[in-house]
Amino acid sequence: MTISIAHLAPPGTYAEQAAIIYRNWLTQVTNEQAFLCPHSTIPQSLRSVSEGETSLAVVPVENSIEGSVNITFDTLWQLNNLRIQLALVMPITHMLVSCANDLATIQTVYSHPQALAQCQKWLEDFLPHVQAISASSTTEALKVLKEDITVAAISSQRAAQLYDLPILRTSINDYPDNCTRFWVISQNQQPNTYKSLKNTASCTSIAFTVPSNIPGALVKPLQVFAHLGINLRKIESRPTKRSLGEYLFFIDLEADIASPSMDSALAELCNHTEVIKLLGTYNVISVTNTSI
Amino acid sequence: MTISIAHLAPPGTYAEQAAIIYRNWLTQVTNEQAFLCPHSTIPQSLRSVSEGETSLAVVPVENSIEGSVNITFDTLWQLNNLRIQLALVMPITHMLVSCANDLATIQTVYSHPQALAQCQKWLEDFLPHVQAISASSTTEALKVLKEDITVAAISSQRAAQLYDLPILRTSINDYPDNCTRFWVISQNQQPNTYKSLKNTASCTSIAFTVPSNIPGALVKPLQVFAHLGINLRKIESRPTKRSLGEYLFFIDLEADIASPSMDSALAELCNHTEVIKLLGTYNVISVTNTSI
Repeated sequence: MTISIAHLAPPGTYAEQAAIIYRNWLTQVTNEQAFLCPHSTIPQSLRSVSEGETSLAVVPVENSIEGSVNITFDTLWQLNNLRIQLALVMPITHMLVSCANDLATIQTVYSHPQALAQCQKWLEDFLPHVQAISASSTTEALKVLKEDITVAAISSQRAAQLYDLPILRTSINDYPDNCTRFWVISQNQQPNTYKSLKNTASCTSIAFTVPSNIPGALVKPLQVFAHLGINLRKIESRPTKRSLGEYLFFIDLEADIASPSMDSALAELCNHTEVIKLLGTYNVISVTNTSI
Repeated sequence: MTISIAHLAPPGTYAEQAAIIYRNWLTQVTNEQAFLCPHSTIPQSLRSVSEGETSLAVVPVENSIEGSVNITFDTLWQLNNLRIQLALVMPITHMLVSCANDLATIQTVYSHPQALAQCQKWLEDFLPHVQAISASSTTEALKVLKEDITVAAISSQRAAQLYDLPILRTSINDYPDNCTRFWVISQNQQPNTYKSLKNTASCTSIAFTVPSNIPGALVKPLQVFAHLGINLRKIESRPTKRSLGEYLFFIDLEADIASPSMDSALAELCNHTEVIKLLGTYNVISVTNTSI
C-alpha cells in the first residue's frame, strides 16, 4: 500500500519540509513509498486522516519560542480516532527574502505571525521603520517579491530556492536554538512503525478535563504521575469554548503507555478526571540535517 | 494628576473598547479624568507603563474560544515593575462588515487571526469558497471596503460605526458566549484603585519556573495551594525560549495575596520554584453593557 501524508500547504512551508523529512525517513527505514498531500489548513490535514482519505498527517505542535500551535490541540480534542505515531523536532532558521539590494530599500515585511514573532528583535534592530504584515503562511507573500523590491518576506531557505528568490539576510531568528516539534498522526488502528522498531516509546500524551471549581482538581491528576515517578514534560491548557475559565488540559509524560507504572496511573487518573483521551505513545526524533 | 491609558491601536479594536469602558468606569468611581494613548503593539503598551510614559495599560489576556494572548504573558515576564490592578471580562460579538448587498458577492474576508478563528464554522457554513486573510487587527482592512464590494471584514459593531460601514450580518461568532478578559496594568508602586474600594481581591496571579527534568517538579508548587484549599483557576505554560521543553508557568489563584493562607503558601512556594514573580492581586469586573 502506498502511504499518503497530509501536511499544511503551500510548498516551501516548514510543515512541508517536516513532511518530506518524515517521508524520506520512512522510505529509508521501512522501504515503503509515500507521497505528500498538501491541505490548506491544519484541521483539514487532520480530518483527512480521521476520514481515511490519507494515511498520515504531519502537523506542527509547538515552537521553542512561540509555544503551542493551538489549532492542532483543539482539532485533536474534537476528532476521536487519531493517534500520535512519532514526534519530529526540526531546527528552524529564518531567512529575509527580498529582491532589494539592501535593507534600506525595504518598506514592508510579510510572514506568518509565528515567524514575525520569532524575528521580532531582529526586525526592531535592523528594520525599525518597516511595516510587518501577517500572512497565512511563510510562503504566501513570496509571489509578489519579484514585482516589488520594497517588499521582503521571512521564510525558509528552501522556500527561497523553490520560488527562485534571493536571500538578503540569513538566520534572522532572535534565538539561535529555534526549533519546532511536529507530530506524525495516524488513525488508531494503524501500527506504530517507529515504536515497532524500538519496542518502547519515550513519551505519552494525554488530554483531559477536570471537575470545575474544586480546589486542587487539577493537582490530583498530576499527583498520580508524580507519586509514580513519571516526569511531566509539558502541560498545556486550552479553553473548552463553553465558558471563560473552563479548560482542557494536555500533558506530555516521559513514559511508554505499556509500562507497568503507567497502567496503574491511567486507572487512577480516571477517578480524578471527567473526560480523558489518550493521544498517543511515541518516540521523538531530533532532525539534525534539514536539507531534503 | 490626569491618568493616561495605553491600549492597542487602531480605533475600533476590542482593546480600545475595553480601555474606554475602563476609563468611563474610573471616572465614575473615582472622579478622576483619564485619556487614551493608542500603541501599535501590546508590548509597546506595557513598556510605556513600565517606563513611566503612561499610567496604565489595558491589555487582552485570554479569549474564551481562542485561549491565551501569548504576547501579553511573555511581555509581563520580561518587565519587572508591573502589577495587575483589575480584570475586565467583556463580551465579544463579531459582525461581518461589507459594502456588498449579499453574501454571494464576497470573495475575500479579512480580520485578525483570533477573530477569523472565532468565526471559523460560520465562515465554512456561509462563505465556504471565500478566502480568509489574516490582518494585524480587526479594523485594519476596513479602509478598503468602500472601494471593493467583494471584500468583507470581521470586526466590532463600534468599528463599523467609526468607519461608517454597513453591517451585512450580525453576531457571526461560532459560540454565543464569546468573551475576552483584559488586565488593567500599572507600575508596582501605584495604589490599586479598585482593591482600595473593595478591601479584598478575588484573584492572584503568579508566574514561576521550576527545576527541569525532576518528576513532580510542577506538581509540588500546585500542591502547596491544593493543601491550603486555594483554588487554581488557570494554569498556562509558555516556553522559556532557551530550549524546547523548558517552560514558565502562569497561574491564577482564587485568593487575595494578603489572606493568611496565601502568606504561608507563598513562603512554601519559594522552596519549589526557581524564579517567582507576583503579577498582581485584583478583582474581576464583568462588563454587561459594552456600548460606550
